[in-house]
Amino acid sequence: MKLDALIIGAHPDDAEIAMGGTILRLQDAGKRVGVLDITRGEMGTRGSMQDRDAETAAATKLLGLAYRGNMNLPDGRVVNDVPTREALALRLRDLQPDLVLTHHCEDLHPDHATVGRMTREAWYLSGLKRLAELDGGPPAKRPTRLLHYLGHVAFDPTLVVNIDAQWERKLEVIRCYASQIQPAGQGDQGAHFLFGSDILSRAETRARYFGELISAHYGEPLLHEGPMGVEDLFGG
Amino acid sequence: MKLDALIIGAHPDDAEIAMGGTILRLQDAGKRVGVLDITRGEMGTRGSMQDRDAETAAATKLLGLAYRGNMNLPDGRVVNDVPTREALALRLRDLQPDLVLTHHCEDLHPDHATVGRMTREAWYLSGLKRLAELDGGPPAKRPTRLLHYLGHVAFDPTLVVNIDAQWERKLEVIRCYASQIQPAGQGDQGAHFLFGSDILSRAETRARYFGELISAHYGEPLLHEGPMGVEDLFGG
Amino acid sequence: MKLDALIIGAHPDDAEIAMGGTILRLQDAGKRVGVLDITRGEMGTRGSMQDRDAETAAATKLLGLAYRGNMNLPDGRVVNDVPTREALALRLRDLQPDLVLTHHCEDLHPDHATVGRMTREAWYLSGLKRLAELDGGPPAKRPTRLLHYLGHVAFDPTLVVNIDAQWERKLEVIRCYASQIQPAGQGDQGAHFLFGSDILSRAETRARYFGELISAHYGEPLLHEGPMGVEDLFGG
Amino acid sequence: MKLDALIIGAHPDDAEIAMGGTILRLQDAGKRVGVLDITRGEMGTRGSMQDRDAETAAATKLLGLAYRGNMNLPDGRVVNDVPTREALALRLRDLQPDLVLTHHCEDLHPDHATVGRMTREAWYLSGLKRLAELDGGPPAKRPTRLLHYLGHVAFDPTLVVNIDAQWERKLEVIRCYASQIQPAGQGDQGAHFLFGSDILSRAETRARYFGELISAHYGEPLLHEGPMGVEDLFGG
Amino acid sequence: MKLDALIIGAHPDDAEIAMGGTILRLQDAGKRVGVLDITRGEMGTRGSMQDRDAETAAATKLLGLAYRGNMNLPDGRVVNDVPTREALALRLRDLQPDLVLTHHCEDLHPDHATVGRMTREAWYLSGLKRLAELDGGPPAKRPTRLLHYLGHVAFDPTLVVNIDAQWERKLEVIRCYASQIQPAGQGDQGAHFLFGSDILSRAETRARYFGELISAHYGEPLLHEGPMGVEDLFGG
Amino acid sequence: MKLDALIIGAHPDDAEIAMGGTILRLQDAGKRVGVLDITRGEMGTRGSMQDRDAETAAATKLLGLAYRGNMNLPDGRVVNDVPTREALALRLRDLQPDLVLTHHCEDLHPDHATVGRMTREAWYLSGLKRLAELDGGPPAKRPTRLLHYLGHVAFDPTLVVNIDAQWERKLEVIRCYASQIQPAGQGDQGAHFLFGSDILSRAETRARYFGELISAHYGEPLLHEGPMGVEDLFGG
Repeated sequence: MKLDALIIGAHPDDAEIAMGGTILRLQDAGKRVGVLDITRGEMGTRGSMQDRDAETAAATKLLGLAYRGNMNLPDGRVVNDVPTREALALRLRDLQPDLVLTHHCEDLHPDHATVGRMTREAWYLSGLKRLAELDGGPPAKRPTRLLHYLGHVAFDPTLVVNIDAQWERKLEVIRCYASQIQPAGQGDQGAHFLFGSDILSRAETRARYFGELISAHYGEPLLHEGPMGVEDLFGG
Repeated sequence: MKLDALIIGAHPDDAEIAMGGTILRLQDAGKRVGVLDITRGEMGTRGSMQDRDAETAAATKLLGLAYRGNMNLPDGRVVNDVPTREALALRLRDLQPDLVLTHHCEDLHPDHATVGRMTREAWYLSGLKRLAELDGGPPAKRPTRLLHYLGHVAFDPTLVVNIDAQWERKLEVIRCYASQIQPAGQGDQGAHFLFGSDILSRAETRARYFGELISAHYGEPLLHEGPMGVEDLFGG
Repeated sequence: MKLDALIIGAHPDDAEIAMGGTILRLQDAGKRVGVLDITRGEMGTRGSMQDRDAETAAATKLLGLAYRGNMNLPDGRVVNDVPTREALALRLRDLQPDLVLTHHCEDLHPDHATVGRMTREAWYLSGLKRLAELDGGPPAKRPTRLLHYLGHVAFDPTLVVNIDAQWERKLEVIRCYASQIQPAGQGDQGAHFLFGSDILSRAETRARYFGELISAHYGEPLLHEGPMGVEDLFGG
Repeated sequence: MKLDALIIGAHPDDAEIAMGGTILRLQDAGKRVGVLDITRGEMGTRGSMQDRDAETAAATKLLGLAYRGNMNLPDGRVVNDVPTREALALRLRDLQPDLVLTHHCEDLHPDHATVGRMTREAWYLSGLKRLAELDGGPPAKRPTRLLHYLGHVAFDPTLVVNIDAQWERKLEVIRCYASQIQPAGQGDQGAHFLFGSDILSRAETRARYFGELISAHYGEPLLHEGPMGVEDLFGG
Repeated sequence: MKLDALIIGAHPDDAEIAMGGTILRLQDAGKRVGVLDITRGEMGTRGSMQDRDAETAAATKLLGLAYRGNMNLPDGRVVNDVPTREALALRLRDLQPDLVLTHHCEDLHPDHATVGRMTREAWYLSGLKRLAELDGGPPAKRPTRLLHYLGHVAFDPTLVVNIDAQWERKLEVIRCYASQIQPAGQGDQGAHFLFGSDILSRAETRARYFGELISAHYGEPLLHEGPMGVEDLFGG
Repeated sequence: MKLDALIIGAHPDDAEIAMGGTILRLQDAGKRVGVLDITRGEMGTRGSMQDRDAETAAATKLLGLAYRGNMNLPDGRVVNDVPTREALALRLRDLQPDLVLTHHCEDLHPDHATVGRMTREAWYLSGLKRLAELDGGPPAKRPTRLLHYLGHVAFDPTLVVNIDAQWERKLEVIRCYASQIQPAGQGDQGAHFLFGSDILSRAETRARYFGELISAHYGEPLLHEGPMGVEDLFGG
């Protein structure tokens, strides 16, 4: 399979909450987009794994994704060891995305940080010819561009994607994850976290804040390591 | 006059938009708070100087400020020269605030940046005994603490003031500036600026975003240069 | 057991040297404070493990700690794997501190850096309801605030705790670790390290330097990730 | 006159040396591009003002610029006072560029730094309706995007413009400034400066270095304050 | 064996490409210099392991190194676990360099980043007396100074070594790695990478760029953590 | 006159307090060192201008400086305008130092910050041949290296000068400024400032803190913009 863009998230719904608008915008522009979840979210405070599988399927359908996969690693216990990162590199060689979006490497959730770093390593390794031959599967091919999306820890984004035209649809996609939109239980109230129970409200706050930074109504922030080569000097 | 806190803004409404919740919270805690505007905002795109004077008076009354002053410098043309910064230092010695809140030194609006830097310099100079003697007025006294509030340019705040209990009142205060809450004219649509015409909406976006960073509903961010000495290690 | 604050150190004496004044100040304010050591320091250049156990007991008594524990991991070989970090999360759920102070994640000593990162991860995980159910022990509860203290690598502190009133007692506490206050042996003279053999002298240098940054005589620096919500805008 | 892009340089040849490739690329894409020089370079170590005027005219012709202007400020003595920055704002309102490229605000040459800061201020002021009315000339209009180009002080660029297709032509344009391509005199050998006398060689070093950062042969780096809104997530 | 300086690289040729000029300059000054490779580079896209062994031998001879070793870890799969880092610490105690140069800890190649971090940890551990006794081998001895060299990710160097007098010889040394100077295959064209196939050209670009930052023709950049103690305030 | 090094301070005693050890070390190494004060310190809280002149003369004699000058600008009101910075550039051309040490550009004292920035600009301008011809005096000559010393605002130093062998003599030099070593008056107690009245104690705190960062007993920190070219990779 040949994708244009792949979004990698530690848990089902991570890709949608952070990058739902960007996914839709890429698709609106005719791109083939996929999502790879690393775990099935069974350690989440709300919703059973079955609930989450069903919700993920509904969101996938609503988004109209060209691909959705899951690496089935244990939630809360993702470890970046050599076999796992090479398995991820194999996925990249198989799906051949030109663009990869993943977690911020400094996120507070250990799974998020681990997935961010593991993706950065797998992205590099996916371009090594001999490693591809050793591990089997499709030949070496490194995605052209790697970017990180926002999680628990604020960062200064390199760019913000204007999602004004996608905002209403992004909300619909997030609403697919009904089990995650309930009030949090007692153990879910730690400091440094977003105050309420409603991920819709949190998504709106962030979209408005980052949107304003580029004169848009709604935006999704991304971090790029090093300078970017861009065609577009006049803004968007 | 002896104030506990003084907020310095380049234009009437700058103090309220950035720090309205903090002003109210300080007053709720029994502190005497004042606002010093540097210009009368006559270069603003909307509202006459007379409109703005009347609106400022209404906001001042609603806030119940212990002091409101204006340095009457020309809007859009604030210059940090020696006489002006010493006049500001004289105000500080006269009002004797323990806490001073001012603009971010890197703000995009030239007046904001100039006022931020001039306040930092005047704050230092207000503590020099011989300069006080030379310039006349009350004796040297440097405010204990100086902090900078957010403007056009995002920063990583040192702290965020929880204004959940003040939020509704802050909105009322901003509504006093009715002339500023109209749709912007044609010349006011430059990039890097907040998208809409409604400063209420912009204030809400920022209060929600920074509030979430400290697990509150609404917050106002502040920047402190160097480490802070704080009594409170358990959060607020 | 319910603590107000928990200090986590890789080796016995790490907590006292970095945070002894803060521990005393918290206790002076009526807080219940505990210390969790991760190893027993058997790889230290000076003093046997038996010496260090006895010294730690004496310091604990002098401090009047509500709790002192040890995870008995191998000194010089602390590894942040899934079982260990979940064991640390269990300790956090058991001790229920509102405030956690731990090593700087970039410290030069591998154990210090590992403990800093592992605490950050365990702190997050301690709030996950299902992980708590899976691992057993008390229910999920995430400490409100996490801060990092200074080690070998200088940082720009977010705040400095004024320990003027605790300084003399801090020295007494450090003196409990008599085996560590001897001249270092030959193999202990690497660059980047403090010049002399006397940890009392080093503690004084740092307390004076950071104290001066907040106009105090003695201070202990702390690093906070992201903005802090503080009640106290007037300094301390 | 309505430009798409305006490059502002303190001295004739600054725009060409830093941004010659970008100018050509914008023109290759059909954009109308202008250059505004702030001084005539009469303090330059090499070449008379007459030489430089003639060289600038030749470069302007070779580039095929839609506009070339000069503010005739004194070389080595550019001051950012209120009348000068408003005169620059008037130029911006007159030329109506959507994109403005200017010096880095931290450059070592005082004129470069002053022009960088003055452009940032004038860019903001150009959007103020009442200031435009007061100063006369065209109505308020703020360019959509402002970026800074590299000078003496290295920075981490936000983006690099691929100028592979323009490189040979950029060299031809620089060669127009023949007086500047001679060996430097004795007084021009200070440290922190590029080693040789040949600006062609220096331009090549930089173009290769920054080009490689985006997998191109030749590139020109630019700094953007805050996140960018870009259409193009797939690189360029 | 007692070395003055040791350069540690993940793959044969890493030391030469990044630090070849510095190695030669140290040797020109009469220092004893060694190189320790961590893997034999068998996963490289070009050249067999046998080719690379022979090329490394030739480069070693041409450089006239006092020592060249290899830890024989698997290329592309270097893991920083306790036994490996202690084995590296043992090498440091054995070779007794005063100066250690290693990879940048944030490099894109996972092996480079792992070697950078592992060296930093082993450097610290090499000074622990009891660990040395436990692991056997020579007594504890920590190298005086640790610096990091440039790889895939740009950094702001602390210093640049002027290699003008060594540049031509550095090129000869790199030419020893003939298998690495061929055009890359199809799988080796990912973005973020240097454009061409010729490591000689890439080495030249970097040497020129960093050299210019210190007014030299050719330079090699190094990153130091924290301030440096230097004798030489007048430059070099 | 031809100096090796010139230290520039806003007020008499600034050079000695910040750089006294470095001055002595440079002289111990046979260098010719001078100090240029920008004002006579008449606005200082303690001591008359006559006192300060006499103290400066004594310190100059004790240091054995090759040169001590004063620009006689008004204390507390130093302004960086074109004539002043060109007068400073003329001094640089006249004294011909290879090394210039000046204030940190972000210092809290307005005079310190102004002198730091003005020196950076004058340093650049001193190398312009035609400006030298226009202003008269010696020909253009730009000092090789410019560094900034610490003031009120902490920074991460690029290097620390080991002054162990000069420490006792530095104290003697500071003691020459007897009027400045008295308890401060009431107006001198602002926050962010060093706690006590004794500049000797403050100098000791800083010397010990920065010394420890390079494994020395006493050190003086310096900030360099951009990478340094150094001969000495083995520390000092």
